[in-house]
Amino acid sequence: MFDVILLATANQGKYGEFKDILTGRLTRELLFAPRVAPLEVEESGATYASNAVLKAKAWAAASGLPALSDDSGLEVGALGWRPGLFSARAALGTDFDRNAQLLSQMEGHTNRRAFFVADVALATPDWTLVCEGVCGGRITGNTSGKGGFGYDPLFVPDGFDLSFAELPTEVKNKISHRAKAVQNLLEILDSWKIL
Amino acid sequence: MFDVILLATANQGKYGEFKDILTGRLTRELLFAPRVAPLEVEESGATYASNAVLKAKAWAAASGLPALSDDSGLEVGALGWRPGLFSARAALGTDFDRNAQLLSQMEGHTNRRAFFVADVALATPDWTLVCEGVCGGRITGNTSGKGGFGYDPLFVPDGFDLSFAELPTEVKNKISHRAKAVQNLLEILDSWKIL
Repeated sequence: MFDVILLATANQGKYGEFKDILTGRLTRELLFAPRVAPLEVEESGATYASNAVLKAKAWAAASGLPALSDDSGLEVGALGWRPGLFSARAALGTDFDRNAQLLSQMEGHTNRRAFFVADVALATPDWTLVCEGVCGGRITGNTSGKGGFGYDPLFVPDGFDLSFAELPTEVKNKISHRAKAVQNLLEILDSWKIL
Repeated sequence: MFDVILLATANQGKYGEFKDILTGRLTRELLFAPRVAPLEVEESGATYASNAVLKAKAWAAASGLPALSDDSGLEVGALGWRPGLFSARAALGTDFDRNAQLLSQMEGHTNRRAFFVADVALATPDWTLVCEGVCGGRITGNTSGKGGFGYDPLFVPDGFDLSFAELPTEVKNKISHRAKAVQNLLEILDSWKIL
């Protein structure tokens, strides 16, 4: 149906994950969006799904290519499921600053339950499809590991004792929220015979 | 794939149009959302598509049913393509008040070009699909007709001399932005063998 897909993100971490997740599943060329159509999209939606659609459609319109986007967040039970939608903007600065802020907010909380949630959207000129993926886990007491990005050093997924930043990339990219969302999307596209 | 679809709108006008457009095309039962799951969804998105996804997913989650939603607007060239996303909230009060406001904003403008745009979203537990439809036309100098809803009495579609509120329902529901969006959605679902 299409020869190339634009990975509609300016986030190098997400780009790398998408590439890893999609390699072997898709024979199409994957383009890194900032090289094709540098674009700032305000993530103004009230849900991951609506933000993902917003971004995928904007990048697709700017580039003329089918565009695959992601909106994701970390939902922490003890913090009323925050930062959630505001994960990437929870604190000024870098991932390091946001991890430090989350750790300080978690001080004294024994309930460490958390979920990573991702919605991925594929936008073409004719339609946009969105699917979701969720990964349950817990917030650790200290950052650990150097892999991944965002809150990965603080998140230990269910069934593991290592954080997303410590787990081998190929493990994270099988079980993560983003991997599940992409998996769901591919299954739908597959079942609809458009892959 | 599913036996019933929730028409995810509390707007009686949209509900009627959806029913007309879908009758004969879908054998499924169509449910009027407020009877099933009364729900207020804030339309906070920055695009029709993201708003449509927001609403369809919210109604689907509240009802447990597949939900079909719409977000639409009137884009007027002389007004910088406003009211657009804010069509339903452009003025307090009723459709009558909003039509009166638009007419007064158009005074003295010779460029009467306008587009009605609709995005429809179908949300299921596994995926959400969005398609768009556009109908070109012009803004008249006076309201005319009693059919339809919203800005229909002020909008004359290309190829016609009557407003959307004057045209027979079966004509409007073949050529309208909403009809085209639904048509696009049905074609995709059809080609993907899920109807």
